[in-house]
Amino acid sequence: MRMSQFFLPVLKENPSEAQIVSHRLMLRAGMVRQASAGIYSWLPLGWRVLQKIEQIVREEQDAAGAQEILMPTMQPAELWRESGRYDDYGQEMLRIKDRHDRDMLFGPTNEELITDIFRHSVRSYRQLPQNLYHIQWKFRDEVRPRFGVMRGREFLMKDNYSFDIDYDGARRSYQKMFVAYLRTFERMGLKAIPMEADTGPIGGDMSHEFIILADTGESEVHCHADFLDFSVAGDVDYDSDLSSIIEHWTSRYAATDEKHDAERFEAKVPADRRISTRGIEVGHIFYFGTKYSAPLGATVTGPDGQDIAVEMGSYGIGVSRLVGAIIEASHDDDGIVWPDAVAPFNVGIVNLKAGDAACDEAAGHIYRTLSDHGLDVLVDDTEERAGSKFATMDLIGLPWQLVVGPRGLKSGQVELKNRRSGERVELSIDDALSRVSTA
Amino acid sequence: MRMSQFFLPVLKENPSEAQIVSHRLMLRAGMVRQASAGIYSWLPLGWRVLQKIEQIVREEQDAAGAQEILMPTMQPAELWRESGRYDDYGQEMLRIKDRHDRDMLFGPTNEELITDIFRHSVRSYRQLPQNLYHIQWKFRDEVRPRFGVMRGREFLMKDNYSFDIDYDGARRSYQKMFVAYLRTFERMGLKAIPMEADTGPIGGDMSHEFIILADTGESEVHCHADFLDFSVAGDVDYDSDLSSIIEHWTSRYAATDEKHDAERFEAKVPADRRISTRGIEVGHIFYFGTKYSAPLGATVTGPDGQDIAVEMGSYGIGVSRLVGAIIEASHDDDGIVWPDAVAPFNVGIVNLKAGDAACDEAAGHIYRTLSDHGLDVLVDDTEERAGSKFATMDLIGLPWQLVVGPRGLKSGQVELKNRRSGERVELSIDDALSRVSTA
Repeated sequence: MRMSQFFLPVLKENPSEAQIVSHRLMLRAGMVRQASAGIYSWLPLGWRVLQKIEQIVREEQDAAGAQEILMPTMQPAELWRESGRYDDYGQEMLRIKDRHDRDMLFGPTNEELITDIFRHSVRSYRQLPQNLYHIQWKFRDEVRPRFGVMRGREFLMKDNYSFDIDYDGARRSYQKMFVAYLRTFERMGLKAIPMEADTGPIGGDMSHEFIILADTGESEVHCHADFLDFSVAGDVDYDSDLSSIIEHWTSRYAATDEKHDAERFEAKVPADRRISTRGIEVGHIFYFGTKYSAPLGATVTGPDGQDIAVEMGSYGIGVSRLVGAIIEASHDDDGIVWPDAVAPFNVGIVNLKAGDAACDEAAGHIYRTLSDHGLDVLVDDTEERAGSKFATMDLIGLPWQLVVGPRGLKSGQVELKNRRSGERVELSIDDALSRVSTA
Repeated sequence: MRMSQFFLPVLKENPSEAQIVSHRLMLRAGMVRQASAGIYSWLPLGWRVLQKIEQIVREEQDAAGAQEILMPTMQPAELWRESGRYDDYGQEMLRIKDRHDRDMLFGPTNEELITDIFRHSVRSYRQLPQNLYHIQWKFRDEVRPRFGVMRGREFLMKDNYSFDIDYDGARRSYQKMFVAYLRTFERMGLKAIPMEADTGPIGGDMSHEFIILADTGESEVHCHADFLDFSVAGDVDYDSDLSSIIEHWTSRYAATDEKHDAERFEAKVPADRRISTRGIEVGHIFYFGTKYSAPLGATVTGPDGQDIAVEMGSYGIGVSRLVGAIIEASHDDDGIVWPDAVAPFNVGIVNLKAGDAACDEAAGHIYRTLSDHGLDVLVDDTEERAGSKFATMDLIGLPWQLVVGPRGLKSGQVELKNRRSGERVELSIDDALSRVSTA
């Protein structure tokens, strides 16, 4: 992509409405634009990141055996009356009347709708387990939307729902998602720590939040420093017993403020390993048994011919929120520092003298070579001055910058900068290409 | 994917609510389920088709130089008051009040919102042309939603918007989209005919609808039979002059009922080349100049320093409607006949005796080999009887069926069936594999 054609409305000034760094940087880097309070349009740079995050979520869901569907944004109120949540859910639910005066709502979550699909589609225990997910925009009418996409009103969420014949099955489904979540966040370059959590309006009695540590987090969290070195490296066989992975990741103290027990924390964690900071919730998993299947009549015929209400769980990842959360966890004074897996482009080429034959040729050669290697490349071919080009590249945070200028080219050299480390080296074009391609 | 695990709730009976074949087949094949009138959940089989269609649309938009963004579903009413459309737009617009009593709406289209983004982002004619698209769910509160996804209330649309400094630029943008649309529909195996059209509520003075011929279409259309042999084969250089392609595709008579002129039709088209039938609109492109840019103040500074309202066009493809339209154009008495490019799976393997060691091994071998070739494969490993398996495979319409049974395997043979032609041949496994892989 050529910067001269790319729709990238960067801001020179810090927008006054942004209170936290991710909101500020997303506006400055031209990633999003507010349509109205808590509702954003995703511009090309932001949309590329959102799609990369969505694709990682999708691949890890598929790997864990979940199947993708798409439920609509608009839901009929009747279903929520069946579950009893229509009146319970407060003003955060956006209630709508259609032209025939029927009560509708913009789905804030999908337990009712998926249970309705299930009860009309599955009849026998032999068709279980099932796990269905979708990645869809939700709406929660926050009284005071803030922090950009971190606490917006219209937000993209991956939610899925598991259906099992009994508690043991439901527990296995829960464990699969637990592991899938660890893998999902690790692929994005995040350290997400599973913490026991309250179940809130979803209900249920087994629940974990996945929390990223960040000073700007919405709530206090407390955990053992060992988590910072944990990893779910390697392939996972989802048909195998996953208990050992779960045990490993729940073997240390980790709790959100609601669940925090200071005495236990001090007893379990040595003083120099205690982390008390703030956290951002990026995922939440629940087991809630028959809370929805019983009132909505989602039953299957069991082996003995009797009808059994299915055991359910639900699992959410805040896809659009993750864009902000990743920036909160990965930025510096100059701008965003994207982890490779979610970067909007892998490489940014800075052509210091667009219009100069040698510079244009070298930049073009580098662009084509890296693109042919399957990398996403942005080339700054504008006539901005060098300082402004460097500032924009740092702001938008691509992992590698490759600077092409007339002076270096005289000796066949370009400058390669790693955005995260800040390291700069002069290299021949071929060496720079191979360094970036094999990174 | 194994059928025994796949969420595929096929119906044995014809659903009584479905009046047209695509609606009936989509329900029977477990592709969608109605959530409420005109609002559907997309189940795994339908979702796969929708994603394939979406990806073809995306690739052809990118190839033509459009850039992808995503605007939200919920829009503020203020913008529509600025353009004057808030009061004009009838009851099809879903109007909503949020918890602070602010007027919102579920976007039925996006001219206002994109113009708002543009006016805050682009200042100079040097940043033109721009063409931004998004693929987003829209809502139109049809008084009588019907025909399944063909005339739903919540529907997926690709819409984009071009911005140019003058009429000549706008015309070029229009031509690029005209050609991109021809290529998009041709890749899906459709014959879409561009017809001059009324501009309706979008406004403007240059407009084409892209229409598929089908008996069940919503409106009468009239065209020259030559169109049935037209093609936009080969690569298109979007930087070249596209006039000859446009001229070719507008050189014959083609008109929707609103624009139809019976006298001209008879004068221009020999009697044996006249087609008068019904059509399904799958795309619509408009040039409308400064209709939105002028009232919303979307101006750029021109070469002479003066502010100029930009020349705009908008371009829509009904992505979810296409799923129904393709079925209307491609089915038989037994079910759907998917064109290769949009088929949910390329190949269906029918294992006639699941549980038999030889059958399972052969089916597994075929499955892995084809998957390694990058094909999407569904294997029926259930214990249904053969007749039921064949009926389901025909119903869901995968291009190839590969039947593995104990009798054939004794002589190392499997049966390969082409869904469209109905042709069946007995082949060795290797021959069947190479036939399907190279198709």
